[in-house]
Amino acid sequence: MEQGYEHTSIQDIIDHLGGLSKGAIYHHFKSKEEILIAVTDNMTAESNQMLAEIRDRSDLNGREKLKTIFKESICRPVQNDIFTVAPDFHNNPKLLFSLLHDTIDHAAPNYILPILQQGISDGSIVTDYPEQLAELILLAANVWMNPMIFDSSEEESYRKFMVFHQMLQGFGLDIVDDEILERLEELTSIYQKSRR
Amino acid sequence: MEQGYEHTSIQDIIDHLGGLSKGAIYHHFKSKEEILIAVTDNMTAESNQMLAEIRDRSDLNGREKLKTIFKESICRPVQNDIFTVAPDFHNNPKLLFSLLHDTIDHAAPNYILPILQQGISDGSIVTDYPEQLAELILLAANVWMNPMIFDSSEEESYRKFMVFHQMLQGFGLDIVDDEILERLEELTSIYQKSRR
Repeated sequence: MEQGYEHTSIQDIIDHLGGLSKGAIYHHFKSKEEILIAVTDNMTAESNQMLAEIRDRSDLNGREKLKTIFKESICRPVQNDIFTVAPDFHNNPKLLFSLLHDTIDHAAPNYILPILQQGISDGSIVTDYPEQLAELILLAANVWMNPMIFDSSEEESYRKFMVFHQMLQGFGLDIVDDEILERLEELTSIYQKSRR
Repeated sequence: MEQGYEHTSIQDIIDHLGGLSKGAIYHHFKSKEEILIAVTDNMTAESNQMLAEIRDRSDLNGREKLKTIFKESICRPVQNDIFTVAPDFHNNPKLLFSLLHDTIDHAAPNYILPILQQGISDGSIVTDYPEQLAELILLAANVWMNPMIFDSSEEESYRKFMVFHQMLQGFGLDIVDDEILERLEELTSIYQKSRR
C-alpha cells in the first residue's frame, strides 16, 4: 500500500513481518510474484463469495442481479486498495493471462451465465446465446475496462464505459446509472494518482 | 506445419536448414519462442499491409471498409497455415500479452479508428466514441473469437460470432454475411483437427 508492487522487494516484506526469516518466506513463496498471486487468490475468493450471494438472491430478477453485481463489484471499498497496490501488468504477462482465463473459464460460466439464464426465463434479458454473452460482458468489464491492464485516462475510462453501456443496450440490457458512472471515475482517478 | 509448434524442437528446425549450425541459429534466436515471434511479426506485417490498403481505398464508405477488412482477414488463405501451426497460447502468456497489446495499442488506432471516423463522416457508422469502439471490436474479434486463445468448438465459435454480430448491430453496424459465417466455421474446423 505504501510503496506499490513494483517498488516493494521481498526483503521489504520480510522487514515488516516481525522477525520471520527469509528462509521461512522462501519456504512458502518462490518469488514476489507468488506472494502477489496468493493475495490475489484471496481477493478473488472474497469477490466470488459476493458474486455467489447476489446470484442466489431470490428478491431480484435477472437484469436486477446483473446490475447489482456490476455496482457491487466496483463499489466495494477493497477496490480502492486493489487499485492502489495494483501491479503493473506490463511486467506480468502470466498474471494477465491468469486473469483472462479466470474471467472466461470460471467467472463467466459460474456467476454471470446463471443470471443471464434467469433473466431469459423471467423476461428481463433477451439473448439466444447466454454463455457467449456472459463471456463478452466480462471480457469487456474485467479486461478491457480494467485500467490496470490498459492504461486509461479518466476521460478514456468514461468513454470506454459509454461504449460498454451502448453494447449492453444493444442486448436490451440497461444496467448503468449515474452512481456506477461516478464510482468508475473515482476508481480511475485513484489508480492514476497511485501511478504518478 | 507438419508437427505443430509444441512438438517442434529447435533441433527439428536446424535439421531442416541444410547444414546451418545450432550456434548460427542461437546467434539470432535465443529460444524457440523468439523464432515464433519473428514469424509472427512477419505475418503481422503482411496483415497490416492488407489493412492499410483497405483503409486507404477511395471506392468504399466506412461501413463497407469495415466489412471488407473483416472478410479479408478471415478469408486470407494464410489463415489456414496460421491455424494449423498455431501455438498453444496456454503455454505462452507473453505471446498472448503481446497480441493483446498489439491489438489495442496498434491495430485499433491505426486501421480501425480511421475507418470508423470515415464512417461517421459519410453517415454509414454512428458512434460518439470511435476510439473505444475500435478497441472493443478488435478485442472481441482478435482475442475473444480467436480459437487459438480460447478453445472453442465449431458450435461455440458460431455462437460467439452471433453475439459479436448482435453487438455490432447495437452500434448500427451490419457487416456480417453468410460467406463470412461459412469461412469462420471452416477455420474453426481446421484448427480443431490440427489439435487432435
